[in-house]
Amino acid sequence: MNIEGKNPVKEALDSDKKISKIYVSKTAHDLQPIIDGAKAKGIRIDFVDKFYLDKISESKRHQGVIAISEDFKYSSVEEIVAFAKSKNQPLFMIILDGIEDPHNLGSILRAAECMGAHGVVIPSRRSAVVNATVLRTSAGSANHIKVAIVGNINDTIRYLTDNFVNVYSADMQGAPIEKSRLDSDLAIVIGNEGNGVKALTKKLCSGVISIPQYGKVNSLNASVACGIICYEVTRQRNL
Amino acid sequence: MNIEGKNPVKEALDSDKKISKIYVSKTAHDLQPIIDGAKAKGIRIDFVDKFYLDKISESKRHQGVIAISEDFKYSSVEEIVAFAKSKNQPLFMIILDGIEDPHNLGSILRAAECMGAHGVVIPSRRSAVVNATVLRTSAGSANHIKVAIVGNINDTIRYLTDNFVNVYSADMQGAPIEKSRLDSDLAIVIGNEGNGVKALTKKLCSGVISIPQYGKVNSLNASVACGIICYEVTRQRNL
Repeated sequence: MNIEGKNPVKEALDSDKKISKIYVSKTAHDLQPIIDGAKAKGIRIDFVDKFYLDKISESKRHQGVIAISEDFKYSSVEEIVAFAKSKNQPLFMIILDGIEDPHNLGSILRAAECMGAHGVVIPSRRSAVVNATVLRTSAGSANHIKVAIVGNINDTIRYLTDNFVNVYSADMQGAPIEKSRLDSDLAIVIGNEGNGVKALTKKLCSGVISIPQYGKVNSLNASVACGIICYEVTRQRNL
Repeated sequence: MNIEGKNPVKEALDSDKKISKIYVSKTAHDLQPIIDGAKAKGIRIDFVDKFYLDKISESKRHQGVIAISEDFKYSSVEEIVAFAKSKNQPLFMIILDGIEDPHNLGSILRAAECMGAHGVVIPSRRSAVVNATVLRTSAGSANHIKVAIVGNINDTIRYLTDNFVNVYSADMQGAPIEKSRLDSDLAIVIGNEGNGVKALTKKLCSGVISIPQYGKVNSLNASVACGIICYEVTRQRNL
């Protein structure tokens, strides 16, 4: 998989991600820290024409540098649960239902990582998966949060509720988040902007929660909604 | 100014914005509600080739329909203050410091409108202004929130603090928002992601507030930060 752009490559170098090679444009500026970082880790650097980068770029916004990494390493739902346990915290998981736009997925991963979620679960079908565009839009955050990919999120929800995790879908006409108790083991299902959470999926959840909104017409963008929900969850847990 | 795409044009038709003409692609589907809405308001409709729309489009994502409106009608800072008074609510204003990316500005306007801010103030220089891209990214919300454009936001901050409004800049290393009192007359200054709020501007503010963050490297996207701050302000006011 490509990791493209200065910040994503810098962050990949700082993480424990395996990088096999870095392509650097012969004419790019400000790449010395990346070159030094790659040298320090013994990673091969190829200086190439900008045209070559344009050609191999997936996101078309490479800023003169593309790192080739082994494929994105997904986690499992169980690893996310174990990660929360290892931190001695109640579980806080985000489950995404049908987020198809990679920019949207990237922004959601960034918000979730910044705001302290333990991990994000995405379905393998009818969903964006982690690619160069997602990594870029996440500003590299996708490298720092556990992302699990599952065949069917409904099975994940059943598994969680069987294990005493509260699973709430985020939607209109639910209980206001500030009046809901979000401090025990928890997963929140976020749907796409057009359709929300699917009816069957909603039925499997323990309840519906809502962000109070005051706008004339539109609802929140999914990444903003994710950020606000994460904020409220951590606020309640730190009280 | 162009208003481009199905939803933005629909919302402009539903608002009291003056539209002089609507261009509709001869081959587009699903535009009957827009055509009916325009006819009901006596707005001239021109059916044109898709190529013509491609040519006049500013955002390059017109979905077969472009409305030509009179220029975006900005409000003034005083109108935002008066609007809060007319609703019998403590003022809640967002001031943007150097948001240059129109996509960012559009997302911020959408978040602010959804989450109940009374208005947004932007500087006339070194800032995106409301254009077709901003309207589109805001999903039309820019039509429903007061946006004031000022020569110098520092003058606005002085004016507000002279009138007993608390003006806080949002930045790292401030007081956590959930522990700050945000229920009286209030303006929040949000800077761009790269540089944050400028030093002189920060000095003029009554204080600095922060969103608690847990990410490894990155800070929140400005629109997600705006959404979280708006959420916390309205949460405190509705307690």
